[in-house]
Amino acid sequence: MIDTITQGTTTTAATEQVIQQFIQAWHTQNKAVSKYFQKYDDAVYMQEVAPGRNRAIYLLGHLTSVSDNLLPLLGLGERLYPQLEELFGTNPDKTFEELPTVAELKDYWEKVSSRLAAHFKHMQTYEWLEPHTRVSEEDFAADPFRNKLNVLMSRTVHIGYHLGQLTLLKPEEPIA
Amino acid sequence: MIDTITQGTTTTAATEQVIQQFIQAWHTQNKAVSKYFQKYDDAVYMQEVAPGRNRAIYLLGHLTSVSDNLLPLLGLGERLYPQLEELFGTNPDKTFEELPTVAELKDYWEKVSSRLAAHFKHMQTYEWLEPHTRVSEEDFAADPFRNKLNVLMSRTVHIGYHLGQLTLLKPEEPIA
Repeated sequence: MIDTITQGTTTTAATEQVIQQFIQAWHTQNKAVSKYFQKYDDAVYMQEVAPGRNRAIYLLGHLTSVSDNLLPLLGLGERLYPQLEELFGTNPDKTFEELPTVAELKDYWEKVSSRLAAHFKHMQTYEWLEPHTRVSEEDFAADPFRNKLNVLMSRTVHIGYHLGQLTLLKPEEPIA
Repeated sequence: MIDTITQGTTTTAATEQVIQQFIQAWHTQNKAVSKYFQKYDDAVYMQEVAPGRNRAIYLLGHLTSVSDNLLPLLGLGERLYPQLEELFGTNPDKTFEELPTVAELKDYWEKVSSRLAAHFKHMQTYEWLEPHTRVSEEDFAADPFRNKLNVLMSRTVHIGYHLGQLTLLKPEEPIA
């Protein structure tokens, strides 16, 4: 294995492998979301995952918004759909009467996922160990775990968290 | 950063950092489970997380059993509570009338988590890149991602998945 010294960080093939494993885990969760939202008719996703809880459409918008926010957070560019933040981030489900349709949100989800995947293909190992864009130099110096990789790790678990909820939706029940 | 060559794998401080970040993510999920099961009276956890779905007690047993199984899977020893597999793994909730109590399961959960944490403290970086105990040499050669680290990564997301479900439980509802 050959060491490469880039931007002051020593990396090896082992580090690269470990980071690639993590990106694969992120992809696995993403694909599980895509598959889940291909499973039923769009109308099914207007249901709550459990009585009085978020609707599946809200969780799809929420996951899309959180992924979209990775673009600025990882220094990869502007959000594709900044309007999702208010609809599915800062406000709870059922705040707004009008939301994008399930079909639109599925399209946004795929576009955000593809955009991120394209960026991840070109990211160098050392870049993952750099601070994300919302941590100060001092805070990063105190805790070097506050890097871009950590953001991806927490977002991967976050997708799993909501997938666990989405699987509770019972499509056989009458749609309100 | 100094390279160390151990057991044929080149590792650097960067690799070690990345692996430590994963272990931290695993700990974070573990602590969230512990905290969740300290939140309410034990009787609350006898409820289903959503109508017709698993009870919280079942998910606690399930998470404990899956974590316990990491001991043999990572080559760290025998399971502490092999009896949990039948109760919370191979069979769905409500198969058995008699289960360990919530208090017992909480104790098992803490003991398994502590045992794993103690092992992880002593594991070397290169060990995480070794095959787990249930992958063949040929399969590992074909896919070196099938290592111990990958097992820990998927288990971390798995905990998040069930935490997402546990948070749906409504403790204010009358207990059946």
